[in-house]
Amino acid sequence: MDSELIEVHTGSRKVTDLTAFIRRFCSGRGDGLCHVFLPHATAGLGIMELGSGSETDLEALIDRVLPRDDRYRHRHGSTGHGADHLLPVLVQPSLMVPVLSGTPQLGTWQSVVLVDPNVDNPVRSLRLSFLGDR
Amino acid sequence: MDSELIEVHTGSRKVTDLTAFIRRFCSGRGDGLCHVFLPHATAGLGIMELGSGSETDLEALIDRVLPRDDRYRHRHGSTGHGADHLLPVLVQPSLMVPVLSGTPQLGTWQSVVLVDPNVDNPVRSLRLSFLGDR
Amino acid sequence: MDSELIEVHTGSRKVTDLTAFIRRFCSGRGDGLCHVFLPHATAGLGIMELGSGSETDLEALIDRVLPRDDRYRHRHGSTGHGADHLLPVLVQPSLMVPVLSGTPQLGTWQSVVLVDPNVDNPVRSLRLSFLGDR
Repeated sequence: MDSELIEVHTGSRKVTDLTAFIRRFCSGRGDGLCHVFLPHATAGLGIMELGSGSETDLEALIDRVLPRDDRYRHRHGSTGHGADHLLPVLVQPSLMVPVLSGTPQLGTWQSVVLVDPNVDNPVRSLRLSFLGDR
Repeated sequence: MDSELIEVHTGSRKVTDLTAFIRRFCSGRGDGLCHVFLPHATAGLGIMELGSGSETDLEALIDRVLPRDDRYRHRHGSTGHGADHLLPVLVQPSLMVPVLSGTPQLGTWQSVVLVDPNVDNPVRSLRLSFLGDR
Repeated sequence: MDSELIEVHTGSRKVTDLTAFIRRFCSGRGDGLCHVFLPHATAGLGIMELGSGSETDLEALIDRVLPRDDRYRHRHGSTGHGADHLLPVLVQPSLMVPVLSGTPQLGTWQSVVLVDPNVDNPVRSLRLSFLGDR
């Protein structure tokens, strides 16, 4: 299994496109599964269409399901940070993408995104692993 | 790795049982992992018990969490279609099932389902991949 | 592929730490992917930070999103048990962890947990599988 830990500059974005990183990592490999993993406790991975407004819709959804107020027991950091700690339970930080001839078999409208309402971390680590035929 | 893209006729169902497709695909293979993947941006995969009313309960849950109204920025298609575009972030279109001697190791009450509130697409593609001992 | 079915005593806990089980299972193995799977229809798997209050926050979140009242069609068992049957659609019972030199590559603050609002089952089965280089 090949595995790499790379840095992703998310800045103040709550939704960051990871698709190009995944395509580059898989390129030249054969058939197999690409595992995408975030070693973080306040971020998750999603698959979605980008560029038509859904990024904003997703931020609103997260604010509805996980309001950033003082209801949380987990209290360090800014108000509502406890919400960030629940996000990965709903939006898993682990995702598998099938790969054929080095090409991720994503659908036309699918992008893999890092979902990170906790904008206090402008850089995130991403682990990509490839398990294939040998 | 063996991988197949098959068509699933979902019709107007919002919850479609995929378990038989997965059992058939895994049959005759040895030990390994079966990856189930939807190359679509408005559908997800779940594991649940079927036949006791939970399908209806799931539709009601989705309507509560993702109301089909005009709140969404993503606006093409019918009113509320923006909700469909958020579903895969909460209900991942990627799922792994462990397989022993060609048999998926699902629990007695577990079925793998395609969750698709967007009933405008009566046919969906499903990619099944098997990575096992060689 | 090596695969084991083990018993986890969850008692009346709604959030049970599985990390030690996973570390033990992976120990001594090389590089690969560890698949964590629950063969149950009313429990899910999450990755989260433990010990700072988020367990209580998660219970409150589940009660908000899946209220334990009589709204459900799935009606056997105690009032609100229908909610438990929807949990695995939002909190998948399938999770993959990357492993290098027998060590799960979890982040510092990440624990793998069994989420089980249905406390009528004090013992749960857990299937761990390892697919790696051979």
